[in-house]
Amino acid sequence: MKFKITSKHGVVAAKGFRVSAVSGGIKKSGQNDMALLVSEGPAHAVGIFTSNRLPAAPVQVSREHLRTSSVHRAVLLNAGSANACTGQAGLKDASRLCAGVAESIGCKSREVLLASTGVIGTRLPVNRMLGALPQAVGRLSRKNGLEAARSIMTTDTVPKQAETSVVIEGTRVRIGGMAKGSGMLHPRMATMLAVITTDMRIGRKDLHAGLKTAGAGSFNAISIDGQTSTNDTVFLLANGAAGLRTGQPGLSACRDFLEALTEVMDTLAQSIVYDGEGAGKFIEIQVQGGRSEPEAMIAARAIGDSLLVKTAMHGEDANWGRILQSLGAADIKLAPNKIKVKINRVPLVSRGVDAGTPWIQANRALRSRQITITVDLGVGRGRARYRTCDLSSKYVEINAAYRS
Amino acid sequence: MKFKITSKHGVVAAKGFRVSAVSGGIKKSGQNDMALLVSEGPAHAVGIFTSNRLPAAPVQVSREHLRTSSVHRAVLLNAGSANACTGQAGLKDASRLCAGVAESIGCKSREVLLASTGVIGTRLPVNRMLGALPQAVGRLSRKNGLEAARSIMTTDTVPKQAETSVVIEGTRVRIGGMAKGSGMLHPRMATMLAVITTDMRIGRKDLHAGLKTAGAGSFNAISIDGQTSTNDTVFLLANGAAGLRTGQPGLSACRDFLEALTEVMDTLAQSIVYDGEGAGKFIEIQVQGGRSEPEAMIAARAIGDSLLVKTAMHGEDANWGRILQSLGAADIKLAPNKIKVKINRVPLVSRGVDAGTPWIQANRALRSRQITITVDLGVGRGRARYRTCDLSSKYVEINAAYRS
Repeated sequence: MKFKITSKHGVVAAKGFRVSAVSGGIKKSGQNDMALLVSEGPAHAVGIFTSNRLPAAPVQVSREHLRTSSVHRAVLLNAGSANACTGQAGLKDASRLCAGVAESIGCKSREVLLASTGVIGTRLPVNRMLGALPQAVGRLSRKNGLEAARSIMTTDTVPKQAETSVVIEGTRVRIGGMAKGSGMLHPRMATMLAVITTDMRIGRKDLHAGLKTAGAGSFNAISIDGQTSTNDTVFLLANGAAGLRTGQPGLSACRDFLEALTEVMDTLAQSIVYDGEGAGKFIEIQVQGGRSEPEAMIAARAIGDSLLVKTAMHGEDANWGRILQSLGAADIKLAPNKIKVKINRVPLVSRGVDAGTPWIQANRALRSRQITITVDLGVGRGRARYRTCDLSSKYVEINAAYRS
Repeated sequence: MKFKITSKHGVVAAKGFRVSAVSGGIKKSGQNDMALLVSEGPAHAVGIFTSNRLPAAPVQVSREHLRTSSVHRAVLLNAGSANACTGQAGLKDASRLCAGVAESIGCKSREVLLASTGVIGTRLPVNRMLGALPQAVGRLSRKNGLEAARSIMTTDTVPKQAETSVVIEGTRVRIGGMAKGSGMLHPRMATMLAVITTDMRIGRKDLHAGLKTAGAGSFNAISIDGQTSTNDTVFLLANGAAGLRTGQPGLSACRDFLEALTEVMDTLAQSIVYDGEGAGKFIEIQVQGGRSEPEAMIAARAIGDSLLVKTAMHGEDANWGRILQSLGAADIKLAPNKIKVKINRVPLVSRGVDAGTPWIQANRALRSRQITITVDLGVGRGRARYRTCDLSSKYVEINAAYRS
């Protein structure tokens, strides 16, 4: 890591952002389930969303607001109910929430963005949520990052936030964010919400390019269970509050900013995988020697999404046959006798067949919490990295009982 | 069902086939792990195989033998070791086994077919297997169907066989078969071995067309865990022993034969799903109203392969949001407000939103072992049917400890 990543202030690490967490009456437990993030001045905002063909109402409304307004002021997030598959009524609910936030903080409705997570198919208790808005506005502060990260949790077991800073042409610029996982999680996008903020001064087009680039290797290269949600959303807001003297930072400054942004997003993405539903192991699949980068990613995903690989890792069984089986099921051409596989540096497959490492020794390498599966396809220079977790009985238990 | 399906003789229900089961010393337990099927006269044989890019040695050798010989006499199957990812040595092992069988029964090596299932990456104990061949030949009989079906089991809990008969132009023709599942199971192909035999007199080209047609709706429309194996194989052998008087049966006779074949294969496919690793529920997904049949199948597969749907069914939770989420993740165009979903005839989704059925009532419909999820996409006349099972903690336990 080039940058020091901390996790103290999260989404309000950057200047000019404030956040609060309150109960909007969605979670039965009465816990906080609503977070309001506000930028003191107008911010440039960009977003990436789920590729699910049945996007939730907040996704539809946020997409619309990103298209119709060039600046944004606030993001309202909630957990407990996804406002997905709720039809026209759900869209109206989302619009009412935006109007409510706009009125509370004094901006236009289209300057408000939304993100929801939770059960699909239930309506939001909009009246109660609107009733909680004055309290949410009253509590806005630069100290509530952790509380906000906690309020958007569903089956997450820990709140997730990260921040760093980078000096851009003499001025310190901050980047921070929060995220939640932790099931129905798969790239393009993972099932997740994340909000990243920065006080960098940057144009919207560059901001969008930065989000897409940083997202490709982070949030879009993780998976818990192969399930693309209806609600996945990553927002990135930049309000320029750091006070950069130059209007247009140079190329190397932009590169530094992108690197810092990538590290913050990557930290959040990894923290989602570490906290995957029922996860006991963090598994990184590194593929090299692919014909191209996309082919290497196809291979990495095929391995990382395999239930049999994930259960073998859970059982600390270096059953490399399952790694090759899942690799062979991927739609890419392979040279069987060139394939090499290592787990935590222990060679398991060489020239496509057993490398001769005794199983006991191989299994020992799996005892650690962090597992790296390295696959060399031996046919080119394409590389990819993909992160997932093991599949445990606990995942099944969590998801068999989710609504009960 | 148009035909009466029984499960007494299985792979030797058809005249002129004999089978035996012996221990080839592969399974540590000393249980039978090798089955030899022999046709008394030369038979036409066809096969469909895994689409995995790393096909096992028996798949490669069998493909070659189907190409180089127009008649076949025997199939040697084994459980315990898949002879996959074993390189040139594994291919040589497979060839030695074919030569051994050919010598034992007096035929050419290329008239012998192979199928293996079990752990990937380990070599077969070929000498021990060759040593067991005389015993296997000695025991060949028309009474060993069940024993043979049992010998090819891995994590299967029950042997799987089925047979029926159909009168073709005045002559009774028999069709029977055996199969094994039950993890690493996914269409194109499911991880499975199956051998179907018939005493029908039929040309090889028609036989192949019949296998492909009957396979599409049976073995290729089931899944346990989305994992395409290296070894999937279905053989269909026809030896003409029923003694059909006409050389070329008419069109309607051929249709009857195909229907009977389909029912035998479908029964075997269903028995694999019922015995899926850790399965407690048999789930059939019926999609109608698709733009086309392939689109309906894409939708059915997306739902049936969803871990979240499978765990919800396991938990008897009628969480229809997960059905829509998985449907939305499929790469087909949807009309959200036209979607209808029912589970065991209880309406859950109407016009894309909650149909208003109380959860308790919906959950009650899930208590049965057999669950039918009906999805109407409302945009055309395409239909598809897909079978899978629930995902339980037991699946994880089985697969976390597979090799130990």
